[in-house]
Amino acid sequence: MTDTKQTVVEGVEALTLNGKSDAEAVETATDAVGAETTTTNADDVVDPWNVASSNDAGIDYDKLIKRFGSSKIDAELIARFEKITGKPAHHFIRRGIFFSHRDLHTILTLHEQGKPFYLYTGRGPSSGSLHMGHLVPFIMTKWLQETFNVPLIIQLTDDEKTLWKDLKIEEAIKLARENAKDIVAMGFDLNKTFIFNNLEFMGKCPALYQNIIRIQKCVTFNQVKGIFGFGDSDIIGKIGFPAAQAAPALSSTFPFIFGNKKVHCLIPCAIDQDPYFRMTRDVAPRLGFPKCALIHSSFFPALQGAKTKMSASEQNSAVFLTDTPKQIKNKINKYAFSGGRTTVEEHRQLGGIPEIDVAYQLLKFFLEDDDKLEEVRVAYGKGEMLTGEIKKLAIETVTPIVEQHQAARKLVTDEVLDKYFEIRSLKFGS
Amino acid sequence: MTDTKQTVVEGVEALTLNGKSDAEAVETATDAVGAETTTTNADDVVDPWNVASSNDAGIDYDKLIKRFGSSKIDAELIARFEKITGKPAHHFIRRGIFFSHRDLHTILTLHEQGKPFYLYTGRGPSSGSLHMGHLVPFIMTKWLQETFNVPLIIQLTDDEKTLWKDLKIEEAIKLARENAKDIVAMGFDLNKTFIFNNLEFMGKCPALYQNIIRIQKCVTFNQVKGIFGFGDSDIIGKIGFPAAQAAPALSSTFPFIFGNKKVHCLIPCAIDQDPYFRMTRDVAPRLGFPKCALIHSSFFPALQGAKTKMSASEQNSAVFLTDTPKQIKNKINKYAFSGGRTTVEEHRQLGGIPEIDVAYQLLKFFLEDDDKLEEVRVAYGKGEMLTGEIKKLAIETVTPIVEQHQAARKLVTDEVLDKYFEIRSLKFGS
Repeated sequence: MTDTKQTVVEGVEALTLNGKSDAEAVETATDAVGAETTTTNADDVVDPWNVASSNDAGIDYDKLIKRFGSSKIDAELIARFEKITGKPAHHFIRRGIFFSHRDLHTILTLHEQGKPFYLYTGRGPSSGSLHMGHLVPFIMTKWLQETFNVPLIIQLTDDEKTLWKDLKIEEAIKLARENAKDIVAMGFDLNKTFIFNNLEFMGKCPALYQNIIRIQKCVTFNQVKGIFGFGDSDIIGKIGFPAAQAAPALSSTFPFIFGNKKVHCLIPCAIDQDPYFRMTRDVAPRLGFPKCALIHSSFFPALQGAKTKMSASEQNSAVFLTDTPKQIKNKINKYAFSGGRTTVEEHRQLGGIPEIDVAYQLLKFFLEDDDKLEEVRVAYGKGEMLTGEIKKLAIETVTPIVEQHQAARKLVTDEVLDKYFEIRSLKFGS
Repeated sequence: MTDTKQTVVEGVEALTLNGKSDAEAVETATDAVGAETTTTNADDVVDPWNVASSNDAGIDYDKLIKRFGSSKIDAELIARFEKITGKPAHHFIRRGIFFSHRDLHTILTLHEQGKPFYLYTGRGPSSGSLHMGHLVPFIMTKWLQETFNVPLIIQLTDDEKTLWKDLKIEEAIKLARENAKDIVAMGFDLNKTFIFNNLEFMGKCPALYQNIIRIQKCVTFNQVKGIFGFGDSDIIGKIGFPAAQAAPALSSTFPFIFGNKKVHCLIPCAIDQDPYFRMTRDVAPRLGFPKCALIHSSFFPALQGAKTKMSASEQNSAVFLTDTPKQIKNKINKYAFSGGRTTVEEHRQLGGIPEIDVAYQLLKFFLEDDDKLEEVRVAYGKGEMLTGEIKKLAIETVTPIVEQHQAARKLVTDEVLDKYFEIRSLKFGS
């Protein structure tokens, strides 16, 4: 999968904030607010390699649902979800962070009937250290796994990163293992979780290559041109790759887990990965498999705002999982795009704008207490809460999550990791 | 590899011979001879999936050498070959059946210096039973292996056949094993020979997929469009496949044989496979490997003549390795395109035309005695030898080869076959 799946979205204009003081940041933010009313979302670009919006609030997700032909996760679906699982939906679902789906009703019905399904997600390992945004799909996936008690497949597309980036095979494999340690550190149940990287697993499981060939036989260059925008001067590795990301959505890719059963699959991912699975859903029935179901997340905002995607080389655009508490504090205070006003007086009078305020967005992702979050939203919107205060709360919310992650990751030795990569059967069935 | 590598070439017009008597066949053959003077070889089509000539004598190989940019195997090269190996060149080389090469001098120099190289050839398993033409590259390869005492890699491209034909994965794997039994029956040395099929070996050797990705990163769609004629409506499996045939020309694909040594490679194949290896030779140096060397064979004529390639479903176009002596006799007598004249009187007066006579071509491939072959050529050309007589000699030459093959193949059990497929080190070094 491409790393944009866990993308941090940032504002192009807001990038000029780097190196400015907090006060200057607030000023620039206000400029940006002024611009908001004049921009539209007609030019949003969302595909596996590009995420860009001309709007400070970021991508218009309702329009994206229409464009992609997926369905909104609405109140009715959430109510059914909660009724069937017997517990409140995760705050990522309640707060619209996972906002779109395909065939989630089918998965719920299967669960109601006591029939099995499995989860499949992944990551494209393009950098050694992950940032907080990368956690989002895995937090959702872990919660779904625990809620439904189902097996989980995690694919690391080191082959894709070799093809798309200036990255050697050996380096990509190394990054895949490093990233996998972060994933394992999140506490996935070893009995129900299988992790693999394509560049090594392909050489250990004939069923994977065989399914890739089956899929590649069903898809023409014209189709991947339409879906992914490939052109004649693209390398043939890119043209063939979508089948490698599609294959894990067919349960027969993992005979050691599913035998010859044709098991339904639910894929939590960021919406930019949907093109892969539109293709997969087209092909699967032709190969005698059910269409994979999906739930799509919105993008995680970069510290600088929600307009375009982060640059991987931009250390200051994100809170990394390797950052110290001091670094986190400094980054958020210095770079987090503010929805506050130019002066304290003006802020008290007009109120801040939570929708474009990155500190507020961090709280929306990571502050679990709904009442507290709503309090903050109202207070900040009324100007009762100042930029410094909302940033402080964001720092206090994010720092322990990062610290806990670092502590957990230290325990993930190569031996622990190898157990997740081991080809074996998983605990399966509800 | 495509099965056209061991292609039987047949005449389109001559196909109408099916079901006609011997006398009628001779008549039709004479029509074709008349046509010969009016056709040119401007329209020869030779690529991995098409072999077609408008000339009754078949492809113009000298023109093909110019078009492909390869080199002729000339008297000087044969002399050097014989000097270095200390024995006469194989009659396939002496008689111009293997007529073209790339960098064969480099391989001879390596051998002179006591440095290693390996042989690589293959087959695309599209049918269960092979015909005599399929033996040609393997006879040459076996002789080269014995002459140079080097390891040999044989690739069965069951993935390619799945992609190009109406063939399921499971069927293609079965055909690959059936074909491998015929190959093993030819007596390859187990200590120096490794055989694999892509659809299974890909899942046993990570180095293969990793090299495929390395190659696919070096080749654009524009390039495979130019080399193989792929178009926008081709399936993406076809577009990516050339890398799977290229990978075994890099010694690092087989770490269990070559370790991390970068070993030179010589590929015996029919000339229609050259496009794959032109691509491979372009890529290899960019990955730090030597360019593979090649020796190219001409095409094996179908019984009906040398104009276009056989139809796999055309039982009467070839002598199959499963045919009985009676079937061989009947096929050659009934269908082998004749270079003889309409009547015995005319034949005695004008003489036959060995160049287009399929019985003579069979002798050129399989009658090892040079003197005897030259006698036949002269006698048939002068009209001293009749069509019935040359066909009788062809039957007597071919039948024992097929019978011996059948006897040898009976001994190739699944257990014997598995040994050749086993991932293991080979005897290596001169």
